[in-house]
Amino acid sequence: MTQQMNIGLLGFGTVGTGVLEIVEQHQDKLAHQIGASVKVKRILVNDLHKDRGSLVTKDQLTDNIDDIINDEEIDAVVEVMGGIEDARLYMKRALESGKHVVTANKDVMALYGSELLQIANEKKCDLFYEASVAGGIPILRTIVEGLASDRITKMMGIVNGTTNYILTQMTKEGRLYDDVLKEAQALGYAEADPTADVEGLDAARKIAILGTLGFSMNLDLDDVSIRGISNVTSQDLAYSKQLGYTMKLVGIANRNDDKVEVSVQPTLVPHDHPLASVDDEFNAVYVYGEAVGETMFYGPGAGKLPTATAVVSDLVEVLKNKRLGVNGNSAIIPQFEKKLKTPEEIHSKYFLRIHAKDIPGTFASLTALFHKNNISLEKILQVPLNEGKLAEIIVVTHEVSKKDYDYVLERLKEEDVVVEVKSSYRAEGEMK
Amino acid sequence: MTQQMNIGLLGFGTVGTGVLEIVEQHQDKLAHQIGASVKVKRILVNDLHKDRGSLVTKDQLTDNIDDIINDEEIDAVVEVMGGIEDARLYMKRALESGKHVVTANKDVMALYGSELLQIANEKKCDLFYEASVAGGIPILRTIVEGLASDRITKMMGIVNGTTNYILTQMTKEGRLYDDVLKEAQALGYAEADPTADVEGLDAARKIAILGTLGFSMNLDLDDVSIRGISNVTSQDLAYSKQLGYTMKLVGIANRNDDKVEVSVQPTLVPHDHPLASVDDEFNAVYVYGEAVGETMFYGPGAGKLPTATAVVSDLVEVLKNKRLGVNGNSAIIPQFEKKLKTPEEIHSKYFLRIHAKDIPGTFASLTALFHKNNISLEKILQVPLNEGKLAEIIVVTHEVSKKDYDYVLERLKEEDVVVEVKSSYRAEGEMK
Repeated sequence: MTQQMNIGLLGFGTVGTGVLEIVEQHQDKLAHQIGASVKVKRILVNDLHKDRGSLVTKDQLTDNIDDIINDEEIDAVVEVMGGIEDARLYMKRALESGKHVVTANKDVMALYGSELLQIANEKKCDLFYEASVAGGIPILRTIVEGLASDRITKMMGIVNGTTNYILTQMTKEGRLYDDVLKEAQALGYAEADPTADVEGLDAARKIAILGTLGFSMNLDLDDVSIRGISNVTSQDLAYSKQLGYTMKLVGIANRNDDKVEVSVQPTLVPHDHPLASVDDEFNAVYVYGEAVGETMFYGPGAGKLPTATAVVSDLVEVLKNKRLGVNGNSAIIPQFEKKLKTPEEIHSKYFLRIHAKDIPGTFASLTALFHKNNISLEKILQVPLNEGKLAEIIVVTHEVSKKDYDYVLERLKEEDVVVEVKSSYRAEGEMK
Repeated sequence: MTQQMNIGLLGFGTVGTGVLEIVEQHQDKLAHQIGASVKVKRILVNDLHKDRGSLVTKDQLTDNIDDIINDEEIDAVVEVMGGIEDARLYMKRALESGKHVVTANKDVMALYGSELLQIANEKKCDLFYEASVAGGIPILRTIVEGLASDRITKMMGIVNGTTNYILTQMTKEGRLYDDVLKEAQALGYAEADPTADVEGLDAARKIAILGTLGFSMNLDLDDVSIRGISNVTSQDLAYSKQLGYTMKLVGIANRNDDKVEVSVQPTLVPHDHPLASVDDEFNAVYVYGEAVGETMFYGPGAGKLPTATAVVSDLVEVLKNKRLGVNGNSAIIPQFEKKLKTPEEIHSKYFLRIHAKDIPGTFASLTALFHKNNISLEKILQVPLNEGKLAEIIVVTHEVSKKDYDYVLERLKEEDVVVEVKSSYRAEGEMK
């Protein structure tokens, strides 16, 4: 074996260190798979003078991206620096100079993926990003390759570990949102500014990527309807449980005929649904294909080694392709025109919790409103509150169009007997 | 697009029909992926005169394998005829004549996989068999590619739908083994002769295939220690449940350093383990990699379309490789010498159920025996039987070597206070 493949690593934080470690420690295995040895030739860092221990030599480090882009010996660039603008620019320059790119950057891929894939396509370069969604689960590869001959109609993902940890702790231990969030921050599961996680933005980026690949349609972040978990209360979770559901922050992408819906929202899933037992910081992606039926992929969503492993797996593919001379087939250009469902076309069950006056006729006037707007109820729970002055009414509807449901939700606020609409969530039905 | 790839299909039963349907119905998608059109040119059947509907023409059918082997226009052979000897012979001849092979045949792959892979390797042919293990789950691809840079140390699979259906019904509905088996036979989930399923042979073939790939070591069916579910009783299931476990027929392959253990046996998994909620006829494979940690892949294990989909996915890979001129890299020759663990080296927890005389000193003499042989207990449950004349004692041990445990199991039968050793099962501990 004489050939050597050279890598340029952008970023040397947790994941970057993990990538270097795996490449160094698995030299034999990598050589066996690729048929060439692999070397991390240069590493882009911010601070050349920081102590990096014995893992790297001074010669490997640089703070100038040009040292990597202009190095013709470098075959592929691994972007694990994070952030958006610089990362996007460097990946773009790498592709334009004919270097293959592996990235773990969901933010860039969700925002500028189509632009970068277009360049990769023109330059016959590979651009792989398995680690950007559910780090430890090879879900993108599975969608693209494993289900190659199937037609995916639905994907549901628990793709944000922070929010899943918070909801699990709230559900299982009965803890309060603020307390769990603080603990998650202390443990390093949540960031100091947790907005992107708890408001659903991080999950939305990932479901946009999944939807784009699974439906072969160019879905942007703007196409994702987003709602986070910051308003979820302990009472909501308790009533969900009582009605046979577990609440999860679920990214949903579904397709009927040629129209799709993509959203992220707190969603009630039945206790016996495979997603219901995905706890704590774990991720899972449920995929329904017309031929194969239900499948689910479960694993760690983040973490140094899971993410670095996904990056190195991509790198192995890229380098094998390079040796075989078949790069440039990875950047699949979406086949279908984007068509989003209208609110009439989005169908779902809903969980609805209302405080109403506990007087004769209350329930009759509510059911009349539901009935008039095509909403039938699957489950009803009524609990007296405030010594019988109020009634807490919780219903789970049958499938209804989002248009009808949203209309009723507005009308409820105007009903005399309704004191307050406490909460409303999407609910998943039986598996399908 | 001018190029056309031709397929020879061996067998036209349920799966064969499914393969033909998918290929016919997804012409556009397949052409987009492969860059060539795909045609099922010939189909090997037993009976040329049977009515096949409008799906095939008379010209496509043949009852002579030579018509396929000798047809130089046929690029790849898809074996979905089942059985062992003929299927093995035809695959061998196909490979020797330079044709690529896709098969769903776990029996042939478990028994003659290394022979066939060797021929494929010599002939630079692809031999893919994704559908042979957990039909609807792309687990082999995941193990080979997705975890490319990881080191797998443990695999646990629920890989037989029939036994999982039986155990689920017994556990959840409290039904009896014989009743559920009869129903499963009536529903077509179990065969008229259910031996290969219920005695664990089918699962053993699949875990041998998983172990061979995951550990890159040539594991045969003979290396798998096998025990089925036909002696599992309702009482065992009820006590398991009470102690926090769910019983599943689990194929286990684990590795410490360079030595491995491969077995199939009824196994108690903790309620919160991802495998515990895999119910009815579904399959799942849990994989622990040193870097990535826990992952699990869930889906249908059999069925016409899931199996046919897996076959077509393999076919797409083969044809892409053919167009790119890179066939023959699929047949990975095992890297490591086979080294099986001795009973001293196999460590596990165990569930043990005993009927003992309910007299003073019984428990003390049992614990003395455990203690003397390095067995400590994690959980103990004692229930009076026969108006206090007998005691039903159930224990779950901490991890212990199989050698020590088997020795104690024999000694228990000789103990004065022990009336009968009712049952004994392996138990999984916390996830790791």
